[in-house]
Amino acid sequence: MTDEELGAVTSIVDVATSSGSYPVHISAGLLDELPRLLVEYSGATRFAIIADDHVALLYGERIGAACLEAGLDVTVLTFPAGEASKNRKSWSILTDEMLEAGLGRDCCVVGVGGGVTTDLAGFVAATYLRGVPVIQVPTSYLAMIDASVGGKTGVDVRAGKNLVGAFHPPAAVLADPEVLGTLPQEERAQGLVEAFKHGTILDAGHFEHLIDVLPRLLDAEPEVAAQAVLTSVQIKAAVVGRDEFEGGYRQVLNFGHTLGHAIEAASGYTMGHGSAIALGMLGEADIGERLGVTDAGTRDTLQAALSAFLALDGSTIDAGEASGFLSADKKVRAGRSRYVLVERVGTVSEGEQWTHDVPDALALEALRRVLAGS
Amino acid sequence: MTDEELGAVTSIVDVATSSGSYPVHISAGLLDELPRLLVEYSGATRFAIIADDHVALLYGERIGAACLEAGLDVTVLTFPAGEASKNRKSWSILTDEMLEAGLGRDCCVVGVGGGVTTDLAGFVAATYLRGVPVIQVPTSYLAMIDASVGGKTGVDVRAGKNLVGAFHPPAAVLADPEVLGTLPQEERAQGLVEAFKHGTILDAGHFEHLIDVLPRLLDAEPEVAAQAVLTSVQIKAAVVGRDEFEGGYRQVLNFGHTLGHAIEAASGYTMGHGSAIALGMLGEADIGERLGVTDAGTRDTLQAALSAFLALDGSTIDAGEASGFLSADKKVRAGRSRYVLVERVGTVSEGEQWTHDVPDALALEALRRVLAGS
Repeated sequence: MTDEELGAVTSIVDVATSSGSYPVHISAGLLDELPRLLVEYSGATRFAIIADDHVALLYGERIGAACLEAGLDVTVLTFPAGEASKNRKSWSILTDEMLEAGLGRDCCVVGVGGGVTTDLAGFVAATYLRGVPVIQVPTSYLAMIDASVGGKTGVDVRAGKNLVGAFHPPAAVLADPEVLGTLPQEERAQGLVEAFKHGTILDAGHFEHLIDVLPRLLDAEPEVAAQAVLTSVQIKAAVVGRDEFEGGYRQVLNFGHTLGHAIEAASGYTMGHGSAIALGMLGEADIGERLGVTDAGTRDTLQAALSAFLALDGSTIDAGEASGFLSADKKVRAGRSRYVLVERVGTVSEGEQWTHDVPDALALEALRRVLAGS
Repeated sequence: MTDEELGAVTSIVDVATSSGSYPVHISAGLLDELPRLLVEYSGATRFAIIADDHVALLYGERIGAACLEAGLDVTVLTFPAGEASKNRKSWSILTDEMLEAGLGRDCCVVGVGGGVTTDLAGFVAATYLRGVPVIQVPTSYLAMIDASVGGKTGVDVRAGKNLVGAFHPPAAVLADPEVLGTLPQEERAQGLVEAFKHGTILDAGHFEHLIDVLPRLLDAEPEVAAQAVLTSVQIKAAVVGRDEFEGGYRQVLNFGHTLGHAIEAASGYTMGHGSAIALGMLGEADIGERLGVTDAGTRDTLQAALSAFLALDGSTIDAGEASGFLSADKKVRAGRSRYVLVERVGTVSEGEQWTHDVPDALALEALRRVLAGS
């Protein structure tokens, strides 16, 4: 694909839900049109913009000024940056601040930031006066590709991540790839893992394209980023359009996440989310190969692609400890320990309702191997 | 209606929602069938029974023993009785306790109690692992007639009651009028106000019947109570089936509540909810009569019916202070101060989308009159 072709990317993907559909609007420079789009997509007359203090510094003034100039009634609410803020306390404070500002049922929440912000702002919107609309303005690869699409909202609690929340589809998602340039390089790399996951389960062409343009994606070239985000959003939209509430098919998006979440937890959340999911993908490819579900060499293909931009070092993590988190997860999932497996890059295995039964011993072995890099 | 006819009351009302429908099962002695019905209506394999400590003492052992005998996997969680417990803290504690018990997506929450419990348990279910089913087992008139039907769940916050919550329709509502016998007489009287409200807006026959059987309702004769609850549930089900999310028609259920909530708040919540709503109904009838919307004498009819079982004394409440709460409420409602009015007992006024614009001065006058009993 030439740069000229890429230059034309200004795309809207519709995501179907049980109560209608919402647009994911992807376009470089979109942020400048934000006031018009907020009104158009929400029909609201007042807006609560929720951002962490970092993003507020970067974009708060720009967005706030543009909204005020356009005559919008806007309140900007911030919280401390970081996953540690994605909790019930931040949710309570934000909700109280909105009530103090006198925001009514005619308001719209706008989440501007990464996955922490879109999850938190979404949960605020889901529960404010029994639900008001939310428009998500993702500013990271992870949020554009994954967090802001699909309607999952929530907070972390002591027992684990995302265990309290609600399904609350946004009124719209507005992604401007130009903002990716302000992300730290490491965060871009972490977020791109989800794009590779989308390619791995459902689109070999996407997987290959990501490898081809990797340096430009890591540099956040807006048009290249827009194209990659678009394809990933199309893949995710097709999945959640088919199964909104994770009853069946939507589980395919969990590829790499069963082992990945256990690895992330065993690291005490010091390991990046993307790195943990990447190791999880390798582990679940390893499992698949040993069960004869996944073509031999698939784990190597994933490893080559992912290690090109991420340090995949699990050597400090104890496989037994990670395995303990698998058991806790299994309990919450009603005693089921089932894995999404792929046949090869681009083709998820149908299995039994898109998952496979995997003996605990085999999962532990896979954890040992990928954590040791063997 | 003779006792023999009443003896036949074992009724199921279906409430339509955007995502299907749920049954409200009303029958004396229903509690004995609870284990079977919980499984039948939820399809769950594990249950979290949520009750306040009073109700847990009264019914916890009976329900718990019956469920265990039936082989159900049941966890009983309690919280301190009273409206003060309907807050985010109780919600957090209950959610954490469920996570500690390892309850997964296959669980079902069961709310056993009055309106505080069904609202709180409903909000726990709405947000636990992004939503699990809830079965409501109301034990008060208010919860049977109103709180457990319609899908509204939530908690109170500093800024006001029910300002944080979600729409989360139950999987089923199981109402056993036999338990009403253990309610304090005063609480029965408070709850019956909502039944009179249903009659006032939509069913003059129901209103008359309530007057006819009032002593037996106050004594909680199971079959008489079952009939009254049934009619009220039918009325409410018809309303919320037509407008689930309170966009239009559902507002008719707010008759008496605009002034009533302001009166309740101005009393510092020392006045019973039913008494406050009763005074609100009188006030809104007064407004309607002065606007020429409501037939002359309607306020007197309501006053005669309601004062037969409730002390309607608002003399300690300052009308100006109550009016201040109206303004706060108006702010949250996007600057709209609109009232549901009736033409006469049994007939709500269509107005403009079921509400009327009422000048603040007229509302203040009505507050002054009903609080002074003049």
